[in-house]
Amino acid sequence: MIKSSQTKIVDCTIRDGGLVNNWDFSVEFVQQLYAGLNEAGVDYMEIGYKNSPKLLKGADQAGPWRFLDDDFLKEVIPHKGKTKLSALVDIGRVDEDDILPREESLLDLIRVACYIKDVDKALALVQTFHDRGYETTLNIMALSNVMENELLEAFELIKESVVDVVYIVDSYGSLDHKDIEYLVNKFKTHLPNKRLGVHTHNNMQLAFSNTLVAADLGVELLDASVYGMGRAAGNCPTELLVTHLKGTKYELRPVLDIIERFMIPLREKEEWGYIIPYMITGTLDEHPRSAMALRASEDKDKVVDFYDKLTTPEVTFDKKK
Amino acid sequence: MIKSSQTKIVDCTIRDGGLVNNWDFSVEFVQQLYAGLNEAGVDYMEIGYKNSPKLLKGADQAGPWRFLDDDFLKEVIPHKGKTKLSALVDIGRVDEDDILPREESLLDLIRVACYIKDVDKALALVQTFHDRGYETTLNIMALSNVMENELLEAFELIKESVVDVVYIVDSYGSLDHKDIEYLVNKFKTHLPNKRLGVHTHNNMQLAFSNTLVAADLGVELLDASVYGMGRAAGNCPTELLVTHLKGTKYELRPVLDIIERFMIPLREKEEWGYIIPYMITGTLDEHPRSAMALRASEDKDKVVDFYDKLTTPEVTFDKKK
Repeated sequence: MIKSSQTKIVDCTIRDGGLVNNWDFSVEFVQQLYAGLNEAGVDYMEIGYKNSPKLLKGADQAGPWRFLDDDFLKEVIPHKGKTKLSALVDIGRVDEDDILPREESLLDLIRVACYIKDVDKALALVQTFHDRGYETTLNIMALSNVMENELLEAFELIKESVVDVVYIVDSYGSLDHKDIEYLVNKFKTHLPNKRLGVHTHNNMQLAFSNTLVAADLGVELLDASVYGMGRAAGNCPTELLVTHLKGTKYELRPVLDIIERFMIPLREKEEWGYIIPYMITGTLDEHPRSAMALRASEDKDKVVDFYDKLTTPEVTFDKKK
Repeated sequence: MIKSSQTKIVDCTIRDGGLVNNWDFSVEFVQQLYAGLNEAGVDYMEIGYKNSPKLLKGADQAGPWRFLDDDFLKEVIPHKGKTKLSALVDIGRVDEDDILPREESLLDLIRVACYIKDVDKALALVQTFHDRGYETTLNIMALSNVMENELLEAFELIKESVVDVVYIVDSYGSLDHKDIEYLVNKFKTHLPNKRLGVHTHNNMQLAFSNTLVAADLGVELLDASVYGMGRAAGNCPTELLVTHLKGTKYELRPVLDIIERFMIPLREKEEWGYIIPYMITGTLDEHPRSAMALRASEDKDKVVDFYDKLTTPEVTFDKKK
């Protein structure tokens, strides 16, 4: 139903999926995924973070996709196909000096993630990357917890900036189709000169449908990951987008091949997807960190206790005492 | 977002979930589920099929919920709560003489499932059950494979019938929000005197969102099952509906309790949900039986071969030969 002439898929399997397995993907896995996404016609592959290991604790334990090195990337992808390459950076964790001019890098797109209060800092980074020749996006996280006045202030800054695409990010997987419709219309009204993107989470099994609703409303960049791999409840599955977008250049078969060879075995070792504690944080519009801690504990299936803890005011804050 | 004053949840865990485990639910399980749904404020529990064992092969191997007996039901539910009880019958598999007058039965609602060609036969059954005092629904299956002219003919019969609620059934899990919108508007236009219901499947992770979209458009009876348990990809999860419908009388906690005590252990033994072969039959708008056969075989994860078989014309029908 949705015409895909304008829509583009950004596969985040390595970047967002790395949050599940600490970026422990082999070079072969990443190469095969890149080949498969190319064959499937996926537009972008986000191959990791471009943060600086100097600015992050525990950096030495993570796989190389957490701190992409341009020379290493050229070894991994010696022959670039049609699928463009993307990297994400976080405010305060990226060293601008690590970002080469685009003509010296395999990367095409640099995306800057931030919370609403840091939009100004994010846009300064966007300007730098834009000046070095990259396509850029601004990914405003946790929109469900942002007040109207903050959002309107941010729009003023964004409107005047050079950023190409502005993302609606449902960080907690708490939005439904009505919320997406509301946000897309708001962004379109206030940012008529910007293209839009969407990044969803699957806490309430709404990641794919919310992405379709956004695409229907004219959102162009659609984030996804193969088999939905991503932190906690995971993302919109790439396989569903490639098969369902109509008038399409996309092919399902190469994505099924990646799922069969890599993702089904990987899912047996690592956990993500629709799991009740993530549903609970989604419906409560909260960060999934409490649910991730529960899933790492012996009580991982004690979902009623977990729900009670999140919905009962702390005894230590009981004002009757 | 969706006002639930009109909407009612019909939990189908036992009836549709029974298609997964051949209705091998213990009496205790069914009693605890009924208690939980009552506490959660769920409006209906579909406690099984009211087909006749005389009219079905292999009847002696199935659990009692496949052929509900009214006396047995009174032992299972000695104290009825607010949650009404429902049973489904199939055309040609029900013996009308098995259906007691409503005042002698615990059942409140009898639903008749049929394909489009049998709408006349289904409505004759509906009339019988209506005359015996029951609420009735007509559940037209496989709507995605029905031509417009067949549907319009069926509407003429339905409009004149006594049936209370007409269901839109996405048997193959192939519909998206645009399709649901199209069907609901068509049903509303042609059946202005009937209430509507919706029954979705989760092959493309759209069961919950399609149900929400339908509710938004005024569909009143929403089918669901706890933890999504149902044939193949399963159904819209009851836990998501009870937590997400707004202005609501529903409670999430009792459903979480059922999930923790019964559904998580059960899911370790039985399989349903978003599994790639079911996604493939969903996107191809086909019955899941080929995918169910694959999942029961040693090749259950050979998804590329499976996709190739379903999308390549049979060699025996190759006209070039």
